[in-house]
Amino acid sequence: MGEFDLIARYFTRTVRRSPLGVGDDCALLQPQPGMQLAVSTDLLLEGRHFLPTVDPRRLGHKALAVNLSDLAACGARPLAFTLALALPGIDEPWLAAFAEGMFALADVHDCELVGGDTTRGALAINITVFGEVPAGQALLRSGARAGDDVWVSGTLGDARLALDALLGTVSLPQAVLEAARLRLETPQPRVALGLALRGIATAAIDVSDGLLGDLVHVLERSGVGATLEAVRVLPLLAAAQALQVETSKALELVLAGGDDYELAFTAPAARRAEVEEAARQAGTPVTRIGRIDALRGLRVLDAQGRPLTQKFTGFDHFA
Amino acid sequence: MGEFDLIARYFTRTVRRSPLGVGDDCALLQPQPGMQLAVSTDLLLEGRHFLPTVDPRRLGHKALAVNLSDLAACGARPLAFTLALALPGIDEPWLAAFAEGMFALADVHDCELVGGDTTRGALAINITVFGEVPAGQALLRSGARAGDDVWVSGTLGDARLALDALLGTVSLPQAVLEAARLRLETPQPRVALGLALRGIATAAIDVSDGLLGDLVHVLERSGVGATLEAVRVLPLLAAAQALQVETSKALELVLAGGDDYELAFTAPAARRAEVEEAARQAGTPVTRIGRIDALRGLRVLDAQGRPLTQKFTGFDHFA
Repeated sequence: MGEFDLIARYFTRTVRRSPLGVGDDCALLQPQPGMQLAVSTDLLLEGRHFLPTVDPRRLGHKALAVNLSDLAACGARPLAFTLALALPGIDEPWLAAFAEGMFALADVHDCELVGGDTTRGALAINITVFGEVPAGQALLRSGARAGDDVWVSGTLGDARLALDALLGTVSLPQAVLEAARLRLETPQPRVALGLALRGIATAAIDVSDGLLGDLVHVLERSGVGATLEAVRVLPLLAAAQALQVETSKALELVLAGGDDYELAFTAPAARRAEVEEAARQAGTPVTRIGRIDALRGLRVLDAQGRPLTQKFTGFDHFA
Repeated sequence: MGEFDLIARYFTRTVRRSPLGVGDDCALLQPQPGMQLAVSTDLLLEGRHFLPTVDPRRLGHKALAVNLSDLAACGARPLAFTLALALPGIDEPWLAAFAEGMFALADVHDCELVGGDTTRGALAINITVFGEVPAGQALLRSGARAGDDVWVSGTLGDARLALDALLGTVSLPQAVLEAARLRLETPQPRVALGLALRGIATAAIDVSDGLLGDLVHVLERSGVGATLEAVRVLPLLAAAQALQVETSKALELVLAGGDDYELAFTAPAARRAEVEEAARQAGTPVTRIGRIDALRGLRVLDAQGRPLTQKFTGFDHFA
């Protein structure tokens, strides 16, 4: 099978919305009048972003999910994506499963594949995703203001716990591992929540490198600081309920684990009810974990209100 | 230096046209009313698409050029691009040169970097490029009609000749090698020609895998065939003027060499003067090399009008 057969068999579907999909020099997109196009791109490499043992169906899901998560963080509605794929060879069962996982998630979000590139090489996946958002309504990192609440969706730290277990540095009961592994391998992008938070949230980011590290980007771009409460974030480690995890380890997982693909966002304290209503509409739980301060820096307080001295290190793709 | 410093130092520039550039979860693009957005993506891997010895400045140029060439083939005006980059390590002189080559070409085409991703891994470059084209005016592969002329821009085969020389399978005089190597390493995307051909050309494609192989895509999508004349394509091998290249080898280079990044296109025979005027305006020479037939298949005739029996093989990224 050559490059063109491979594309025809696994990666060509009739486009429903875009004027032109796979098969020409370019795809064509037609944003609605008054809309801006949100664009994000993520490069996933075997060994760095996923383990060689991952189920290809889950890998197809995740490769698209991490990109949809960026659209969610901007409050953009998914439209389309391109896929650039380097493959060490043509493994048809692998390709069929990868495509199935990717398209299943694409269909959930009505996001269509419009183009791409394939080549032989070490397994690498680069998806670029396109969404639309009314001009001026995108959720940015730069809008947090002193007095805002800090919120986060869903749960945090389980993906990293699963990774640690798969790498053999921690041992987990099978049921806990399976649950955590689903968080690692099939993250659910918070697209509905991002859309519901338009006009309510003042800033948002998706949690991919670890909550603290990602939140710092919001603080820097907004010119503010933040104070989080450990007692509010600790319960976010879902697996901790079933385990005897030390507090310091649990905090590390929750605050700096990474690969969560939840949304961290800020909103005025006066709009708590609206945030909760948006979360209810989106079917996504949210937790208020702290507040934005005028004082720069990011502080985490213990139950007695004292700053934690523990150091947390987020994921750096070059560290 | 971490990932964020790297992006800040080498890949962050103020956007001039896009509402939001590098540094948030998504970039934002704002196509003009009535415009469609043309999108293309190309993944370049060391060893497969470029040699490890390539000058990083030229590599930066080429990584963007091959994408702009796809926009040219659609008649789209470049707007913006994203860059996903896997690097084996942080080599600052290399990064500075790569960025310089990439941005120099970007500036020529007023195309701005709006986002991307970086990670550590075997050198891989994935650029996704965005352009705009008035709705309904994109040049597609599907519009060729029997009786149309077949045209190609510039020269063909020199890039492949340079690659063969660099791989040691042919020997070239230094001056010839240097000229051919420029074609291989710094292709000039035919953006101005693509724009000038809007409304004149019936179909277009960029020549990346070899003229015949690429032309077959046009023929298949248009439901037609074509007949080319060897005497018209042979002079397109610029280096052949300076060399004693056998005719069969020269034909192989011109018809199936690849990496040319010229435009192959079709236009009604009645519009030859308009094609030539468009080429003059764009400052890009074009050559008429054959015609589109109702009879399917692609034939190349020798000087006596007999079909060539020589087989030509284009570049397949999985072959």
